[in-house]
Amino acid sequence: MKSGRFITIEGGEGAGKTTLIQELERRIMAAGIAVVTTREPGGIAIAEQIRGVILDSRHTSMDGRTEALLYAAARRQHLVEKVIPALKQGFVVICDRFIDSSLAYQGYARGLGMEAVWEINRFAIGDTMPDLTIWMDIEPEEGLKRIHKDDCRELNRLDLEGLKFHEKVRSGYEQIYRQYPNRIVRIDASAEPDAVARQAIAAVEHGLKGFFAENVKL
Amino acid sequence: MKSGRFITIEGGEGAGKTTLIQELERRIMAAGIAVVTTREPGGIAIAEQIRGVILDSRHTSMDGRTEALLYAAARRQHLVEKVIPALKQGFVVICDRFIDSSLAYQGYARGLGMEAVWEINRFAIGDTMPDLTIWMDIEPEEGLKRIHKDDCRELNRLDLEGLKFHEKVRSGYEQIYRQYPNRIVRIDASAEPDAVARQAIAAVEHGLKGFFAENVKL
Repeated sequence: MKSGRFITIEGGEGAGKTTLIQELERRIMAAGIAVVTTREPGGIAIAEQIRGVILDSRHTSMDGRTEALLYAAARRQHLVEKVIPALKQGFVVICDRFIDSSLAYQGYARGLGMEAVWEINRFAIGDTMPDLTIWMDIEPEEGLKRIHKDDCRELNRLDLEGLKFHEKVRSGYEQIYRQYPNRIVRIDASAEPDAVARQAIAAVEHGLKGFFAENVKL
Repeated sequence: MKSGRFITIEGGEGAGKTTLIQELERRIMAAGIAVVTTREPGGIAIAEQIRGVILDSRHTSMDGRTEALLYAAARRQHLVEKVIPALKQGFVVICDRFIDSSLAYQGYARGLGMEAVWEINRFAIGDTMPDLTIWMDIEPEEGLKRIHKDDCRELNRLDLEGLKFHEKVRSGYEQIYRQYPNRIVRIDASAEPDAVARQAIAAVEHGLKGFFAENVKL
């Protein structure tokens, strides 16, 4: 039986997930609570091998559904070998991207269908849905500028094609957010890092309040 | 749009699928009809790589659902790269095992659940269900004896453990057969090869009668 709590961090490119995860880890550890941060494939040999197939084959014509099934397979193994054992030991597990990424990117933005991608991912994860998901929401243009900031230039035609895709990803997240308002907390990721962290910490304190002892303050 | 016909051959170990497929191929070719025989992963590089992961990892603890998702991924790619193009060209495609194997072996015998395995496989195959499935039904004990016939000995304890599993596989096929009586033809695979071939050819002639020209006799 699970006794820890499972938090996932979601969002488009440049939303600042990595920075937030480090801050959350630091704050939760400082409060004396055991925490594990991870991201798929998470060093799990089988999941790494599966990712290897996905990456290895990019030059050939891998079908979108093949890819979605491979991601789901890697997710399953990472969950079984790493996430679930940590949850059983009572850890807070923070995972960088999880099922909602597949729904937003593959189901919605790539057009495989959210329901179909949901089905295969439910098969992969079973009952292990996140207790709390933080959606780092940012205007795609702003997010892309952040990851291209070294270029110091305006978005070009290719970037703009990318932009359309990332706008679809955001619409996908928007739709998932409306479906799961209790699980997902939306955070304005365009704010200053301190403000983002404050919002996220408040969301974690609220979302996990039955889990933390009453005197715990992150 | 598909213009060929898709036949799958199913059944437990030792049912004689390979022999039957060779005979069907010969007869269909002799009638002047273009035919392709295949089996997953079918020489498709991505599907071979996926199978490689499944086989490579047998010594580690690959989760049953991870494995089912990997099989579905390999199936998808084999279908997209080999089966569907052949069907589009008007070929009769005969495939050694397909979705029903996953349902019987993984869904039923390994206990992942037939409906759950059905869902991920439907995602993998979309609308490309077989036009006709020949289920080579044989008593598992008889089938196992056939594949162990060089031993000339009675089934030992390990074989008997295997036997229970193969009896479950047969029950799984039985259940699928009852669900899809129009698609699946059950053949008594314990009969002599000639009799088996006759039954199978009759099933193909009947099942594909709208496809073959009227004067075609296999």
